[in-house]
Amino acid sequence: MPMSLPATIAWSGDHETGTLQLLDQTLLPHEVVVLDLDTAEGVIDAIVRLAVRGAPAIGVAAAYGLVLGTRRALTAGGTFATAIREQADRLVAARPTAVNLAWAVERCVAAASDLQELLREARLIHSEDEAACAGMGCHGAPLVPEGGTVLTHCNTGRLATAGDGTALAVLFAAWREGRRFRVLADETRPLLQGARLTALELAVEGIPTEVICDGAAAGLMARGEIQLVLTGSDRVAANGDFANKVGTYPLALAAAAHDVPFYVVAPLSTFDASLRSGAEIPIEERDATEVTAIAGHELAPAGIGARNPAFDCTPAHLVTGIVTEAGILRPPFVESIKAALLVGR
Amino acid sequence: MPMSLPATIAWSGDHETGTLQLLDQTLLPHEVVVLDLDTAEGVIDAIVRLAVRGAPAIGVAAAYGLVLGTRRALTAGGTFATAIREQADRLVAARPTAVNLAWAVERCVAAASDLQELLREARLIHSEDEAACAGMGCHGAPLVPEGGTVLTHCNTGRLATAGDGTALAVLFAAWREGRRFRVLADETRPLLQGARLTALELAVEGIPTEVICDGAAAGLMARGEIQLVLTGSDRVAANGDFANKVGTYPLALAAAAHDVPFYVVAPLSTFDASLRSGAEIPIEERDATEVTAIAGHELAPAGIGARNPAFDCTPAHLVTGIVTEAGILRPPFVESIKAALLVGR
Repeated sequence: MPMSLPATIAWSGDHETGTLQLLDQTLLPHEVVVLDLDTAEGVIDAIVRLAVRGAPAIGVAAAYGLVLGTRRALTAGGTFATAIREQADRLVAARPTAVNLAWAVERCVAAASDLQELLREARLIHSEDEAACAGMGCHGAPLVPEGGTVLTHCNTGRLATAGDGTALAVLFAAWREGRRFRVLADETRPLLQGARLTALELAVEGIPTEVICDGAAAGLMARGEIQLVLTGSDRVAANGDFANKVGTYPLALAAAAHDVPFYVVAPLSTFDASLRSGAEIPIEERDATEVTAIAGHELAPAGIGARNPAFDCTPAHLVTGIVTEAGILRPPFVESIKAALLVGR
Repeated sequence: MPMSLPATIAWSGDHETGTLQLLDQTLLPHEVVVLDLDTAEGVIDAIVRLAVRGAPAIGVAAAYGLVLGTRRALTAGGTFATAIREQADRLVAARPTAVNLAWAVERCVAAASDLQELLREARLIHSEDEAACAGMGCHGAPLVPEGGTVLTHCNTGRLATAGDGTALAVLFAAWREGRRFRVLADETRPLLQGARLTALELAVEGIPTEVICDGAAAGLMARGEIQLVLTGSDRVAANGDFANKVGTYPLALAAAAHDVPFYVVAPLSTFDASLRSGAEIPIEERDATEVTAIAGHELAPAGIGARNPAFDCTPAHLVTGIVTEAGILRPPFVESIKAALLVGR
């Protein structure tokens, strides 16, 4: 097991010749490989095959991808405005559910009138995400019960953001403050981001962690073995409904059934006030082979297909609170979200 | 993919020299291997490592295992009563959650005073289970909605019983009656009985089937894509609470949240009227490596542990009905279960 990890996302060089470094998360925890990308195609491919994943990290990577794509397009002639618009549309189409991708790309388009400004905006998004992670950690840490067990789903740490993470940033901050607790990490089928990535990040930090199958959480809650659930989000609607990695919604149902506090941890860049409810969030369906095979090993009989929705949507009434860099939002979320977005962005 | 399967359990020969054939389910769907066993140790090993699994199948296999173990013990001298008691205790200890194991073994102990009677009782349990499967299929088939989609969990078919199955027997019977429907099979981590075994059994029968990750069911119910949930059970308490493969309880929570009918399908041999509620059902915890590795491929970082409860318990208030060979039991279950056990056994 690697005892430290390179940066999830880094940019080296200037706007004219710089390149993007992405840690290839598909190979973790067994191999540490850093991709060095100089085209938007390379970034889109990395996003589609989940070499980089996690809503905030996708946003930052896409912003840098826009620098690379626009730079390349300009060498073939045409205006900056045309080039950046075309590259932006291609990047935004890479994954549909996480709103951070479109948010970061459109923010860059609106802010930049040349490559230098574009890289500056991408770097700003990068550093703002780092700061937002720190803010979420700070606001959320007091929620972690001393001596308790925290359940988390998918990966929401340094590998999912440009900083300390979202839900995992809360755990890192609580641990640094001296709180002691245990973590149960849902393995998070099909791609096992919990077993592969969350377990790795928590182990590197020395936080006691055990993996569980996704279906095991409800039974453990019923037996009183979980005191807090923390998840990230890929998109929060105006009413507090939120999309997150498939398997999040059943956790929220189980938490509600057993009065276990259920907190979402997400930066304001993950909120989409244009959607009234979660019903409007597009849910990505990915390839069946992600379900029917693991690491080249066929699990199901040949010829058997699979449904593979990558996300699900949890209704706001199951959410205890939403931890953001602007503080913890509480129900009624329509009001607290509106206020946070007015103040925070 | 094998297009037909040998019998899950078969006995060949008489009480003096006969042996037990078990289809090794750990190798499916890729390899079809039949074990030929002549010792109780071999049967216990097959039960512990899940070469034979499914509550009813475990009961039948254990009854035959008792024949093999008692026969071997008698060659070393001692009385039949001592030999059968000692072998019974060893077999019952093999797995704690499914009550059918203890039920079948104790029934044999009570019925037999020599090896010939013991084999006769084991054969009777075997054929009664076949008949119970047919009865559950017959009673349950009308529940299957024409043109609808049925969700099931783990494996509850011919591989889990000595007959057509429990929940899958209902699907087989409905299909034979000409009803047309689709099935979503939960893959059922950690050991993937859904992806490996249920998908295989349904495909062999020509029933359209797709696999889903266990965490995906709730989101699909929310989107109206599932009209019925059918599961088996390993033990039903007197009040209708029931234990089943881990991941069943969150399905029941999701079904209740979306008014999807949730039926348990179980023979009367799975009922344990001595337990007032599900809180008294022992939940087996299995080895962490079942979670952290698949088919020899390490999923989690080295050194990371796992919790691995093999079952969870679903409270009766989430259950629409329990399909048995004696008919469909409805709430209040305390009364309907008591009546069924009075009449049916």
